[in-house]
Amino acid sequence: MTRTPIGTPLDGTVRAATGEQLQGLMIDLIALGLHGKQLHWHVVGTNFKNVHEQLDEIIDDARTASDEVAERAITVGVPVDGRPAAVAKENTLPELPEGWVQDADAVERYAEAVTAVVTKARTAVGELEAEPASQDLVIGILQTFEKHLWMLQAQLQS
Amino acid sequence: MTRTPIGTPLDGTVRAATGEQLQGLMIDLIALGLHGKQLHWHVVGTNFKNVHEQLDEIIDDARTASDEVAERAITVGVPVDGRPAAVAKENTLPELPEGWVQDADAVERYAEAVTAVVTKARTAVGELEAEPASQDLVIGILQTFEKHLWMLQAQLQS
Amino acid sequence: MTRTPIGTPLDGTVRAATGEQLQGLMIDLIALGLHGKQLHWHVVGTNFKNVHEQLDEIIDDARTASDEVAERAITVGVPVDGRPAAVAKENTLPELPEGWVQDADAVERYAEAVTAVVTKARTAVGELEAEPASQDLVIGILQTFEKHLWMLQAQLQS
Amino acid sequence: MTRTPIGTPLDGTVRAATGEQLQGLMIDLIALGLHGKQLHWHVVGTNFKNVHEQLDEIIDDARTASDEVAERAITVGVPVDGRPAAVAKENTLPELPEGWVQDADAVERYAEAVTAVVTKARTAVGELEAEPASQDLVIGILQTFEKHLWMLQAQLQS
Amino acid sequence: MTRTPIGTPLDGTVRAATGEQLQGLMIDLIALGLHGKQLHWHVVGTNFKNVHEQLDEIIDDARTASDEVAERAITVGVPVDGRPAAVAKENTLPELPEGWVQDADAVERYAEAVTAVVTKARTAVGELEAEPASQDLVIGILQTFEKHLWMLQAQLQS
Amino acid sequence: MTRTPIGTPLDGTVRAATGEQLQGLMIDLIALGLHGKQLHWHVVGTNFKNVHEQLDEIIDDARTASDEVAERAITVGVPVDGRPAAVAKENTLPELPEGWVQDADAVERYAEAVTAVVTKARTAVGELEAEPASQDLVIGILQTFEKHLWMLQAQLQS
Amino acid sequence: MTRTPIGTPLDGTVRAATGEQLQGLMIDLIALGLHGKQLHWHVVGTNFKNVHEQLDEIIDDARTASDEVAERAITVGVPVDGRPAAVAKENTLPELPEGWVQDADAVERYAEAVTAVVTKARTAVGELEAEPASQDLVIGILQTFEKHLWMLQAQLQS
Amino acid sequence: MTRTPIGTPLDGTVRAATGEQLQGLMIDLIALGLHGKQLHWHVVGTNFKNVHEQLDEIIDDARTASDEVAERAITVGVPVDGRPAAVAKENTLPELPEGWVQDADAVERYAEAVTAVVTKARTAVGELEAEPASQDLVIGILQTFEKHLWMLQAQLQS
Amino acid sequence: MTRTPIGTPLDGTVRAATGEQLQGLMIDLIALGLHGKQLHWHVVGTNFKNVHEQLDEIIDDARTASDEVAERAITVGVPVDGRPAAVAKENTLPELPEGWVQDADAVERYAEAVTAVVTKARTAVGELEAEPASQDLVIGILQTFEKHLWMLQAQLQS
Amino acid sequence: MTRTPIGTPLDGTVRAATGEQLQGLMIDLIALGLHGKQLHWHVVGTNFKNVHEQLDEIIDDARTASDEVAERAITVGVPVDGRPAAVAKENTLPELPEGWVQDADAVERYAEAVTAVVTKARTAVGELEAEPASQDLVIGILQTFEKHLWMLQAQLQS
Amino acid sequence: MTRTPIGTPLDGTVRAATGEQLQGLMIDLIALGLHGKQLHWHVVGTNFKNVHEQLDEIIDDARTASDEVAERAITVGVPVDGRPAAVAKENTLPELPEGWVQDADAVERYAEAVTAVVTKARTAVGELEAEPASQDLVIGILQTFEKHLWMLQAQLQS
Amino acid sequence: MTRTPIGTPLDGTVRAATGEQLQGLMIDLIALGLHGKQLHWHVVGTNFKNVHEQLDEIIDDARTASDEVAERAITVGVPVDGRPAAVAKENTLPELPEGWVQDADAVERYAEAVTAVVTKARTAVGELEAEPASQDLVIGILQTFEKHLWMLQAQLQS
Repeated sequence: MTRTPIGTPLDGTVRAATGEQLQGLMIDLIALGLHGKQLHWHVVGTNFKNVHEQLDEIIDDARTASDEVAERAITVGVPVDGRPAAVAKENTLPELPEGWVQDADAVERYAEAVTAVVTKARTAVGELEAEPASQDLVIGILQTFEKHLWMLQAQLQS
Repeated sequence: MTRTPIGTPLDGTVRAATGEQLQGLMIDLIALGLHGKQLHWHVVGTNFKNVHEQLDEIIDDARTASDEVAERAITVGVPVDGRPAAVAKENTLPELPEGWVQDADAVERYAEAVTAVVTKARTAVGELEAEPASQDLVIGILQTFEKHLWMLQAQLQS
Repeated sequence: MTRTPIGTPLDGTVRAATGEQLQGLMIDLIALGLHGKQLHWHVVGTNFKNVHEQLDEIIDDARTASDEVAERAITVGVPVDGRPAAVAKENTLPELPEGWVQDADAVERYAEAVTAVVTKARTAVGELEAEPASQDLVIGILQTFEKHLWMLQAQLQS
Repeated sequence: MTRTPIGTPLDGTVRAATGEQLQGLMIDLIALGLHGKQLHWHVVGTNFKNVHEQLDEIIDDARTASDEVAERAITVGVPVDGRPAAVAKENTLPELPEGWVQDADAVERYAEAVTAVVTKARTAVGELEAEPASQDLVIGILQTFEKHLWMLQAQLQS
Repeated sequence: MTRTPIGTPLDGTVRAATGEQLQGLMIDLIALGLHGKQLHWHVVGTNFKNVHEQLDEIIDDARTASDEVAERAITVGVPVDGRPAAVAKENTLPELPEGWVQDADAVERYAEAVTAVVTKARTAVGELEAEPASQDLVIGILQTFEKHLWMLQAQLQS
Repeated sequence: MTRTPIGTPLDGTVRAATGEQLQGLMIDLIALGLHGKQLHWHVVGTNFKNVHEQLDEIIDDARTASDEVAERAITVGVPVDGRPAAVAKENTLPELPEGWVQDADAVERYAEAVTAVVTKARTAVGELEAEPASQDLVIGILQTFEKHLWMLQAQLQS
Repeated sequence: MTRTPIGTPLDGTVRAATGEQLQGLMIDLIALGLHGKQLHWHVVGTNFKNVHEQLDEIIDDARTASDEVAERAITVGVPVDGRPAAVAKENTLPELPEGWVQDADAVERYAEAVTAVVTKARTAVGELEAEPASQDLVIGILQTFEKHLWMLQAQLQS
Repeated sequence: MTRTPIGTPLDGTVRAATGEQLQGLMIDLIALGLHGKQLHWHVVGTNFKNVHEQLDEIIDDARTASDEVAERAITVGVPVDGRPAAVAKENTLPELPEGWVQDADAVERYAEAVTAVVTKARTAVGELEAEPASQDLVIGILQTFEKHLWMLQAQLQS
Repeated sequence: MTRTPIGTPLDGTVRAATGEQLQGLMIDLIALGLHGKQLHWHVVGTNFKNVHEQLDEIIDDARTASDEVAERAITVGVPVDGRPAAVAKENTLPELPEGWVQDADAVERYAEAVTAVVTKARTAVGELEAEPASQDLVIGILQTFEKHLWMLQAQLQS
Repeated sequence: MTRTPIGTPLDGTVRAATGEQLQGLMIDLIALGLHGKQLHWHVVGTNFKNVHEQLDEIIDDARTASDEVAERAITVGVPVDGRPAAVAKENTLPELPEGWVQDADAVERYAEAVTAVVTKARTAVGELEAEPASQDLVIGILQTFEKHLWMLQAQLQS
Repeated sequence: MTRTPIGTPLDGTVRAATGEQLQGLMIDLIALGLHGKQLHWHVVGTNFKNVHEQLDEIIDDARTASDEVAERAITVGVPVDGRPAAVAKENTLPELPEGWVQDADAVERYAEAVTAVVTKARTAVGELEAEPASQDLVIGILQTFEKHLWMLQAQLQS
Repeated sequence: MTRTPIGTPLDGTVRAATGEQLQGLMIDLIALGLHGKQLHWHVVGTNFKNVHEQLDEIIDDARTASDEVAERAITVGVPVDGRPAAVAKENTLPELPEGWVQDADAVERYAEAVTAVVTKARTAVGELEAEPASQDLVIGILQTFEKHLWMLQAQLQS
């Protein structure tokens, strides 16, 4: 089915630009969830318990945010693509190594992943000036993940 | 880090076989969650609300189950690979179309996806005879998703 | 009592414009709650249970939002008028028929009612540039009801 | 749709009389909710917080009761009319002034509004002798609002 | 043990009549629970999820009500008979077919079952004039199941 | 202050009769709570734990009911007298012995106390025909304490 | 409708054997619930409260288990028969007497009823070797009711 | 039964003194609950809602404390007397007037009642030096009611 | 340690301006909490209970908001100073008198304190145009405290 | 590691005496938990359910109390010894028999065990005069277990 | 009392073998709880908080599991011995040192203790082939403690 | 207002001494909350998450305790001074540095702050002999913060 069954008051250009920003952010948020779980499972080291649990808190936020972003795109009538192949191909997160990961290394790698999401969100805030409802949603997501980024970076100081 | 930091009483052959079964099942469960969300967002039709909500219930179970399966593999000392590329490449679910999906079509496609998971789990139960703790975990997952499969199939009768 | 007992830092023009936008939106949100109940009671058809329950979810949001909008106007020192006569006279929702309503018809009519609210809210967002606290409140309401609108429209595709 | 899709064991006369009593009571209960909010927003004075919160408790009961009364009418096969125009035209509550209201004045005016509801409910109890299920429902509502009336009147003694 | 160990202020005639009404209603309520589960398990069709869940809500009310009715009879000193053979023999609900049931058919059949219960309860209300405590209990049950009946009937209109 | 500050639609005769019935019932319910605690503290015997806990359940209901009855009298404009001297002088419960009480004896004595309350409530139901809201309240209390009476009497059979 | 709308990977023989075991167990579990309520209502004696409450705990487990067993049969595509006549005719529990039952007698009779269920479940575990998901479900039920049996038997020692 | 069935390590003199202090405090706490309810029902005036609710909070603490004090006496083997006649005769609270009470008057009278309890508790703390467990309990009660006393007194300043 | 361990995408000027606004607002919010508690403890008068409780609600919001503001500054890499000396020296709230405060006076003084916070927040909203995530946070805080200000001011009208 | 890593303001003598009292009490509380479970499992008799459940309530309190006592010793810098051998060797509870225990016998034996704990706690209260924080903790424990002792002894009267 | 009051369908050999396996596992689980608390109290080091809390999570699981294992033995009619002397003498966990324990050392020692339990449980799974209900219980316990073992071992990698 | 509106049974000397002790302790507890937040925001290092969260737990206890201490002073009729200037000037905690703090350093500094509070509380316990209700409150606070002190000190051992 290729008709656009959901109508909104946005004109075509704003709708397309909005859809593009939200699609990109959604992909990175889904990937953030998958990367988080990969590290959650393979982290080892003295700090295991802290990192293992902190990752799950960020993963929860990533899942909630990807759902909100996707549903906002749908709400303005733009379908998204969150299928496994799209996530694998389009995400902009730095790749993870396979297998076990030492605790400090896990924190550092996940801080890089969150940085990628924050960068994408901050760009989107700028691009969404003409669509305040979507912009407001992304600003909230930006607050959440910049706060997570602080908490990861704080652990890298010693 | 490529050492195997987690030790268990399983001998090498059983450990390898167990890891292989759990890796495969985990990938399909992760993909089941992603496919579920894709349909959750794009479903349209009279039955929208039912399907939209039922998908989220199955997605929750898929996420929980993929986490349990991955952690069981880790517990027996075998790392897994749940990164986006692995999910995209290794999953055995039938592909989804892009864009909007009519309600009955969404139910039918998701029933096929759950069937793929159930088939993989039933095979794993047979292959895990030598590792009763992993086998018991997979039997519980099998019960859960066969029940979901009934509830999806029941909607396709009219 | 006709004095203005509540003072705020807004100058007179901004305060008047803010009050006008909020009064109009509040009336339509109150009417949205009343229309929703009328349909909630009179809907019939195979899809009765879904529609009956979905309406109550939107009604809850409408009641919460009308309260927030009215209290924001009060907060900036502008009284509102939410008495039955004002609601009857000033609301911009399309009229409902009396008596029983078939399920698909109920969904379609309520989608039109929500569209009226969304249109009014989107206008208000533009008019409230000079009062960011009120604008932010209305953007949140816009997100909520555009999402409800998607979910209603999705059911009209078959 | 003008057929009567819901059948009940009441004969025609009882059904009509029941419908009439319930329609009238429902309208006043809806109006009680709207009047309550109008006062909730505009009350000022030393006793602001008490009155502001007490009104919300009565409003909650009014909303619940109007829903129960309407659904009871529907249950016996009689459609009701709770659209804004009907509420504005048919309610028997004394009118409220516009704008700010001093605390003691707000209590006194709302006591008058509750008195109107209680009077209507007490009449309905008498008229519903032939329909004990509806009568029992209205007796319960009568208990609730007579108790609220006591609590409002108690505040007027000084 | 055949003595009557529980004493109440009811005279013999009222006690016997009360016991008879409550025994009959209890049997039909137990049967309503069993019929509900049979349909809950075997329903198929597009509307599966709605019907499957709605049945469980009515079953919960039927179980609660049968317990209250039986305990009221015990309270006035009259033993009841809720053993499987009594339920099978004495219930007045129309029989159900064996095996799978299409969704609309399930709704229609359960509406007939609820109608049987409502009819019995309405009769009991009349017969219990001399025992107001039991009568009041049955009136509450009547309200509950007439409301369920409306919601089932509403789905049969299309 | 001797004025009657709370007004209700009852005429003087009905109001007086209602007040008299409610005053009497309230006193016995307060006494039931005090007697219950006295036994709750002094019961001994094999069955101590059951009796100790069952008494507290009945006491909770007695406290709730005495509050409801008193507030109903207040609601119809009749003050009550629940001061210690009035409770001591007016209650119609059989006296309790001082000091320790054997478990079976405690059950028997409390069954007698509940019997006194039930008798008073049943009388009140008859006397309150002209005031259906108060009558309905007392019928509910009658159901509650007749059920407690069954559960106490059931323990006296061996 | 006599088609088999629900498909599963079991071959015909295993499916039939599974259905037969589950049907038999479900019937006894439903009967266990009905017998439990009959005793719950009619038990008398010093130990009334303990027995009355313990029965309700076992009844809850019996209702949950009968639902799980029936839904497992449905899941493997086999309809069941839980209608009142089937329960009355097919259950294998020893019959209960009518009327009041002394406390120790109630415990002893219910221990016999639970023994019947446990025996049937233990047989089913053996017969379900080829269907591990159903077998695992029945093993869990066996654990539950053997534990209840211990707690009933423990009360019969004095 | 006049034996002392509960044994504790306290010698006779300490036990008797402890029992005497706890009996007196328990009586005043029970009376505090009854006086509180009397005022809770009859208070009128602008401040009705505050006083009505504050009284219930103190009543809850009075009921809990009287139970703790009585159970402590029982624990050290001393029976208490909390029957209505004892409460009426032994309590040391100033008497309440009958009928309606103005709000400020209600606060003042209840502050006097709480003062009586606080005075008795402070005396008991001194007398219980030799029984630290009972003393500690009474100190906790003293803290609670002195705090309530502050909150009542604070309202009397204007 | 004087390095800046937390990095964010803000350039130096924006970061400095953001830090300055957030530091100032944080100090006033901490002071608002301390002032609130001082009044919460020392308020006296007829309206004691309302004011005492309302202050605690605002204090809770002040504590939450000061934490959010401080953490936002940290998130953008700017340390703050919330030590007692800084709070005492930098806060812009009007000073409180020592000792007891009459209820109306407490409300008036706290309304002035909240006004100081609201003024500071409204300025910050303007200064934070270049940092939308921080601006959005402050707008939310502005909504909260302007609403509290209305509720305080409303009590000053009589 | 034999250093004393935790410092407190107690001088050496008080610290040693405190540690000795707390070590002894902790051992008996741990043993009380183990004895309680042994009886919880092996009790039989008519009163099985009451005793089985009451034991678990006391066990919960014993586990909480042993943890508090041990952590208080640690807090004042004294390590404790709660290893199995220490518990077996140092506890002062009377020994339990092996195997099944009749209900009344179980109550009597556990009353003796609680008596041992209460005696030890009452001694400790006297010895801890110089360390009021530890003394206060033990007084609370004394209250708890003396209350349990009453409830056990009360069951032994018949 | 040495009779065997609880009967089950197991023959003598299976019953004895089952009892032996469960007794051994129960002892080690009780000891695991006691060792866990000893470490919970005495751990010191940078990682104190993580280890202190993680130990309590494992202790909770150990207590629950020892109770389940003991009750399963009782359920099949075999008494167990969980008295302090038996725990001290029969447990197979490596001994703990007295006094303070460094964090990494605590983790390592508790990993050894959990390894002992896991080894015993894995053996029991093999020995319980003839008693599937007990075997299934032990498999669940095996899953739980192998997962805890992973989480402890993961912390030992650095 | 300088009158002392709250009366208590303490004589002047005891009241003054009590007020002085409580004022001092309250100030240090308020400062403990502010210092805790300062460290909560600025801590960095591997152990960030543990320290960040542990601080919040202690801060919650500090806020609760400062409120209880202040309200106890008010209860005995002594006003306190918790304004920002008083907190800054009178607190006895060692000063904190500005800006970022390494994790181990944060723990050490907060342990010193808690030590200051504990020392002040231990002194107060001695000085409050003549006012047992205040003394008991402070003993409870002493227990809480000595326990926190242990948990901080335990982390400083490596």
